[in-house]
Amino acid sequence: MIPVLKYPPKETWLDLCQRPSYDNTSIESTVNGIMQAVKVDGDAALINYTKVLDKCELVNGLQVTVAEIEGASLSISSELKRAIDQAYANIFQFHQSQIETIKIITTMNGVSCWRESRPIEKVGLYIPGGSAPLFSTVLMLGIPANIAGCAEVIMCSPPQPNGSIHPATLYAAWKVGISKIYKVGGAQAIAAMAFGTATIPKAYKLFGPGNQYVTEAKMQAQSMGLAIDMLAGPSEVLIIADASSNAAYIAADLLAQLEHGTDSQAILLTDALDKAQEVQAALQIQLQVLPRKKIIEQSVKGSKLVVLPSIDDCVAFSNEYAPEHLILALGNANDYKTQIVNAGSVFVGELSCESLGDYASGTNHTLPTNGYSKAYSGVSVDSFIKKITFQEITNKGMLAIGPIVETMASAEGLQAHKNAVSIRLNALK
Amino acid sequence: MIPVLKYPPKETWLDLCQRPSYDNTSIESTVNGIMQAVKVDGDAALINYTKVLDKCELVNGLQVTVAEIEGASLSISSELKRAIDQAYANIFQFHQSQIETIKIITTMNGVSCWRESRPIEKVGLYIPGGSAPLFSTVLMLGIPANIAGCAEVIMCSPPQPNGSIHPATLYAAWKVGISKIYKVGGAQAIAAMAFGTATIPKAYKLFGPGNQYVTEAKMQAQSMGLAIDMLAGPSEVLIIADASSNAAYIAADLLAQLEHGTDSQAILLTDALDKAQEVQAALQIQLQVLPRKKIIEQSVKGSKLVVLPSIDDCVAFSNEYAPEHLILALGNANDYKTQIVNAGSVFVGELSCESLGDYASGTNHTLPTNGYSKAYSGVSVDSFIKKITFQEITNKGMLAIGPIVETMASAEGLQAHKNAVSIRLNALK
Repeated sequence: MIPVLKYPPKETWLDLCQRPSYDNTSIESTVNGIMQAVKVDGDAALINYTKVLDKCELVNGLQVTVAEIEGASLSISSELKRAIDQAYANIFQFHQSQIETIKIITTMNGVSCWRESRPIEKVGLYIPGGSAPLFSTVLMLGIPANIAGCAEVIMCSPPQPNGSIHPATLYAAWKVGISKIYKVGGAQAIAAMAFGTATIPKAYKLFGPGNQYVTEAKMQAQSMGLAIDMLAGPSEVLIIADASSNAAYIAADLLAQLEHGTDSQAILLTDALDKAQEVQAALQIQLQVLPRKKIIEQSVKGSKLVVLPSIDDCVAFSNEYAPEHLILALGNANDYKTQIVNAGSVFVGELSCESLGDYASGTNHTLPTNGYSKAYSGVSVDSFIKKITFQEITNKGMLAIGPIVETMASAEGLQAHKNAVSIRLNALK
Repeated sequence: MIPVLKYPPKETWLDLCQRPSYDNTSIESTVNGIMQAVKVDGDAALINYTKVLDKCELVNGLQVTVAEIEGASLSISSELKRAIDQAYANIFQFHQSQIETIKIITTMNGVSCWRESRPIEKVGLYIPGGSAPLFSTVLMLGIPANIAGCAEVIMCSPPQPNGSIHPATLYAAWKVGISKIYKVGGAQAIAAMAFGTATIPKAYKLFGPGNQYVTEAKMQAQSMGLAIDMLAGPSEVLIIADASSNAAYIAADLLAQLEHGTDSQAILLTDALDKAQEVQAALQIQLQVLPRKKIIEQSVKGSKLVVLPSIDDCVAFSNEYAPEHLILALGNANDYKTQIVNAGSVFVGELSCESLGDYASGTNHTLPTNGYSKAYSGVSVDSFIKKITFQEITNKGMLAIGPIVETMASAEGLQAHKNAVSIRLNALK
């Protein structure tokens, strides 16, 4: 039973917003060892780690074959295929809208500046394995990579002991046009995409969630100069509700978050003490029938039901917490949208539950956790492109802007910078 | 004299594109010591480091006073003020155009998705000191921060031994509306903004160039979870020229880059051997009169004049090198724009010299070095905002999308995710 925390004073909010901290130093050297082994021994190291850690002998090699990819479509139900196809269409449509058109800005007469987007040429996607196939993450990373136009999109995912990757994962990869799929997981997969091996090409940017080994490997890759999407922590939801909200919906949303893992975070903020108590009771009832009850009984210990004086206070608390997912389970949810400054993805109104965004509404589910939404956005097409600035200056433009640059370069003591302008101005005069 | 490298075979390009590598391990522990000292001792540590490293006793405290900021305007020439004002107007106009309007996308009937931009609330700008005031960097970081609407923009810059910060730097800060300016430099400034002290507020994201200590401190701050703009390496230019290009312009542009520091990189690629030799000669002549001759005589050693079979080859080489600055000093420069995939900022045509973008054309001069333009963009308004996704689902939308999400959640083995949808569908039916 989660206790209800009544009206905690403002000076305690910062403490209440703290996530549990994890000390990664114990795995730092393990991961570094894996990274170095893959750097030196390449494919042989990958095959060895897969044997030891995934209990899988890769007798047919690291790469998923065309036959495996094409066969996947036959191994999953047509109901699941139709669902994936509709999710694909929604996610594609929303991400397609993120493509920017070129705007040429004339800052002075004869001085034009603009930005053009270019895909990151080589990207690597990591899809965790484990108890269930995460085909939704294949869609969430593969679709924007495809829309961005990345020339080489590769994917790594740990094989099951029988050497296969779940057909739903392969079907999703086929949908998004990924043909280079490798049966390797964990820190060794990150190392393979960071350094490249005989089989697996090197990527310029790495994406995807994973356990603490994967996260530590991504951090080490980043410090070597590779780009990464973000550092993933345990998943989180924060729900803001009032006296009119449906307690059963809220309990269901909290439990959906808590089933992810024993370290998942779920917080309810409300201005109605009754509602908090109602949710507390609904949680107990709904929990009983859930298959992942054992996980939730652990993760629920870190959860909080907090009563605050007003919805404005709830929003202020939420902005301090900076949740990955924020559900505004309020009748007048739209009134609070502009007040939200820190969040990964926002679900407006009590019908807009997080599950919809996790799978199919169209928004991306790869989002900043651990308070990172104070400074980071979730994954989008932007994550797969760079914007290059261009400028073009005419004779007239040079005559106008040249003297300004001469003055500034001179004041910064950079005479050669000034000279690059003067030599042109002299030729034009 | 830079040797001319004639038609290097393609398999050597990758080696030719390598930047000199710097081993930061020797300063890692020094910087970590500074970070820890500032974390523990706060302002006292800053005052002490400033005394020891900048030879400056901060008798009037760390913060620049209102009187100092307002007095700056009187201490610089009206010519420089007018130049800064025009640069400000150009940079402002170009960055203003980067603000995105909200587009609501209906992915299914009753399912709306959109993104809204929010400023990063607290940002910290680092402006190096040294031999010359870098007021241009104040504009390049302060203007997009201002346009983004960041609530708290702070700035750190090392004081001169007399305790002052150059009036041009203060004038630029005043122009962009920064009032919280602190007299502290180096790794200790990064530490102060990362942890916060009694005087200096903590920031969520850190920006700005600096020496290897500053860069190492930013890297350590990043591994603690802070966001940073990018890891800055030595500045670079790559110029592509043909037989028709003006050798004197090219030499001037190469020298402008090389005066930055002894580790600056400058590369000419051309399909005309004569042109390379002409540039080689022009470099010798122009160098003689430059005040930073001593620096350039060092940096020129790492420079390259490379002759390749065609301009298409030059573009392919440039994409592999991924330069910070790329000058297309070609009569038909516009024909090659779409082929450019990796670069920070591109200067189209031989009048469009890098100095213009460094100061005043409107584009940003904080750009990815060291090949990072393969995966990173330069600083823009995007760097100072996060994009939050929103979704709103109506009854009709839930009836359409709900069953899809039930199927997908079930296939991923996440029953509580399915239940959050089912409980709503049941209520609607």
